[in-house]
Amino acid sequence: MEAVKNAVHENATLWIARLAEAVAIPSVSGERERRPEVVRMGRWLVAHMQRLGFTDVVERDIGEQTVADGAAPLPLPPVVLGTYGTDPAKKTVLVYGHYDVQPAAKEDGWATDPFQLVEQADGRLVGRGASDDKGPLMGWLWAIEAHQKAGVALPVNLKCCFEGMEESGSEGLDALIAAEAQAGGYFDGVDAVCISDNYWLGTTKPCLTYGLRGVSYFNLTVRGPARDLHSGVFGGTVHEPMTDLVRLMSTLVDPQGKILVPGIYDTVAPVTDAERELYKTIEFSVGDINNATGSESALTSDKAQLLMGRWRNPSLSLHGIEGAFATPGSKTVIPAKVIGKFSIRTVPHQDPDEITRLVKAHVAAEFAKLESTNTIAVACDHAGKSWVADINHWNFTAAIKAVKTVFGVTPDLTREGGSIPVTLTFQEALNKNVLLLPMGRGDDGAHSTNEKLDRDNYLRGIELMATYLHEIAAASTA
Amino acid sequence: MEAVKNAVHENATLWIARLAEAVAIPSVSGERERRPEVVRMGRWLVAHMQRLGFTDVVERDIGEQTVADGAAPLPLPPVVLGTYGTDPAKKTVLVYGHYDVQPAAKEDGWATDPFQLVEQADGRLVGRGASDDKGPLMGWLWAIEAHQKAGVALPVNLKCCFEGMEESGSEGLDALIAAEAQAGGYFDGVDAVCISDNYWLGTTKPCLTYGLRGVSYFNLTVRGPARDLHSGVFGGTVHEPMTDLVRLMSTLVDPQGKILVPGIYDTVAPVTDAERELYKTIEFSVGDINNATGSESALTSDKAQLLMGRWRNPSLSLHGIEGAFATPGSKTVIPAKVIGKFSIRTVPHQDPDEITRLVKAHVAAEFAKLESTNTIAVACDHAGKSWVADINHWNFTAAIKAVKTVFGVTPDLTREGGSIPVTLTFQEALNKNVLLLPMGRGDDGAHSTNEKLDRDNYLRGIELMATYLHEIAAASTA
Repeated sequence: MEAVKNAVHENATLWIARLAEAVAIPSVSGERERRPEVVRMGRWLVAHMQRLGFTDVVERDIGEQTVADGAAPLPLPPVVLGTYGTDPAKKTVLVYGHYDVQPAAKEDGWATDPFQLVEQADGRLVGRGASDDKGPLMGWLWAIEAHQKAGVALPVNLKCCFEGMEESGSEGLDALIAAEAQAGGYFDGVDAVCISDNYWLGTTKPCLTYGLRGVSYFNLTVRGPARDLHSGVFGGTVHEPMTDLVRLMSTLVDPQGKILVPGIYDTVAPVTDAERELYKTIEFSVGDINNATGSESALTSDKAQLLMGRWRNPSLSLHGIEGAFATPGSKTVIPAKVIGKFSIRTVPHQDPDEITRLVKAHVAAEFAKLESTNTIAVACDHAGKSWVADINHWNFTAAIKAVKTVFGVTPDLTREGGSIPVTLTFQEALNKNVLLLPMGRGDDGAHSTNEKLDRDNYLRGIELMATYLHEIAAASTA
Repeated sequence: MEAVKNAVHENATLWIARLAEAVAIPSVSGERERRPEVVRMGRWLVAHMQRLGFTDVVERDIGEQTVADGAAPLPLPPVVLGTYGTDPAKKTVLVYGHYDVQPAAKEDGWATDPFQLVEQADGRLVGRGASDDKGPLMGWLWAIEAHQKAGVALPVNLKCCFEGMEESGSEGLDALIAAEAQAGGYFDGVDAVCISDNYWLGTTKPCLTYGLRGVSYFNLTVRGPARDLHSGVFGGTVHEPMTDLVRLMSTLVDPQGKILVPGIYDTVAPVTDAERELYKTIEFSVGDINNATGSESALTSDKAQLLMGRWRNPSLSLHGIEGAFATPGSKTVIPAKVIGKFSIRTVPHQDPDEITRLVKAHVAAEFAKLESTNTIAVACDHAGKSWVADINHWNFTAAIKAVKTVFGVTPDLTREGGSIPVTLTFQEALNKNVLLLPMGRGDDGAHSTNEKLDRDNYLRGIELMATYLHEIAAASTA
């Protein structure tokens, strides 16, 4: 590994030049006119994979995107698949990354052209996609190339799954994963999965991520009059939908963040002593939350409570109301139909169907109390399940050892409050352990202006990937 | 009067042709490019007033309109003033109307060109401004012309105040009224005021209107985080402004329409027996409310209770929330700053300052219960006072007699739930009785598509105006 490590760091200039090349391809999947750039970025990866000796490299067509506004359907960018090694004596690791990026424009407040990588004196590599997710995705390729330069054989078989629609809902990916996970499919024979598409919790200490919350998004519709009414003419004579809706929304969550839907906490996995132990060493404080929000809005100053609130307890947020007056100024309208939007972040072992049942029952019971002539409808707009991995699995043990070797510290074991749906898709389709291995820092500004990846995170990230693969190879699967 | 009456009806074709001419001038005050048409409409009125022998006819310049978007200020259309008769032995009546109209376009759903008057077989005169307010305004002029054609002297002195900005907030009018109400001003010597700019309650029975509710419009702002947050990352860790706002809004009014702000009902004038008596004969039922709203949303089926809820009791409507997610689809945002909008329709003897004080005290008390780190601010955006006239004044007695003569029925004495601010302005500036004398029916669709004035309402409206002036002349002021 020493030779591989040296090859990683000796070729720093090369890896950075390659990142600059990739950043210069504005592969914004969310912009129709830039869809060809996404395809071009996929081709760029294919060329490198072929050069490195990947076999079975394919740009898998996953069909067309249905476009809402009646325009012609747009072809989806291909999913790039590749295989590096097929030695049955070695373990096979599936790695996932995405080669599309968020939109970006200088006018949004970027200090420099977002599609031109700039290496700052402080080591920041600034450019759209540097951290999300071009740097981490390419890290796997350069880890292989470093092995080749060092004359060291890769100790595992690697399969890659690189998509070009992650920033636009990963359309078409689930079907591909489900199909390729079948016996004889592309992913058949995979022993573990590693996804590098998230971030350290903070800016100094590496982490491994083993859990994500799910989300169930609800629309609560209250209807009454057939049309919007003038409050001068009708105020005081009719049951107003807004009055009912605000009343109902106020019964969902209390100001301390406690969800008020009966039964909602019943299936939440209890905190074990081992889990409680994990929180003790995590590098985090209430100051991190307050810095991130630019306020003193934190619900508590207790570190563990705060992190559990973020990662492993459900939460309910009220997002807004559709159909009511929502712009500056004043309008004396009684809206006829209003839709309250809220979502519940769910955790193991909450079941989305059960969550929907509980929400509907609660809203119906509260609405009955109002004695209103209006009508309500509650719909779960979409639901994604939570995910949690077994951190005692050899996949995690290998990654923990690799972090210790490269960074000299034991990584924090973290979860995230949001969702990365592909994680659960892989786990459910393959029934294999999935690990989230972040490369960048918490302040990389992934979807924001001046996105960056620190030079040190990039280089030691490549080294970490290489080291992880060696630890995987060495791990006992017993 | 018989001769005048005959002159009104014999010249029906002429009055309708004149209405068609006026409707053909698209005097939309709310559209910048049509402002010259408003001025042209004012000139058209001036020409007729001069032809009829009005004296002192002036197009009073009331300054410029400040335009929000930084464009050049727009000159306000003039207020047209005119005097018909100055006999000190006669009473002087001030009449008000407006010559600007709401916007209208065929594409909005009009069956015909909105600026071309169409006389339908059922007697509907369809066109923008027919009922609001060109027909009623011109009614005064044709009442005078009918007197001239019949060779009958007008039994009162008439002063006209016709504005061109009513549909755009009557900018500049209050200052003019205040100035001209002074000794030596244009309105000095006025004995009573009559405004014809509202509608019958229904479609068959004439009414006189003696009260209007006021309105106090509030913005309730809750702030927390410095920027919008992602609910995946921050849900469960911060005090969310939406949670607090919805909670606060739910404490303002109950689903039965009862306002929950303590003290709000304390100053509401009690219902007298005489007032209760008025409601008995009013032609109205719960079906009228349900027809108007296209629903079964009425709070009660008791006629008097329903009308009191609309006219003489305060009401509170929640209009919407600014700053939250308000469009179709789903967005997992925790809004950083949200502004709840609500208004209270106020009635005698509620004082706007006291209302604001009560609302602020209530919100502060409810917010304290939330134990939130967020901050709130409550502001009364604007407040207009309620108005109620003495229905035993000779101005009303004269109008009641006139309605009986022309329509053969005693008019309903009604209020309105909305506000017509100029009413209170005249009453307060002149300290004279003000009467609202509607010409059109409740289904005229004043601000809607296919606005109409019924031919019979127009002609008998002119007759009613003429008759009213005679009853004014005959009235004892003792």
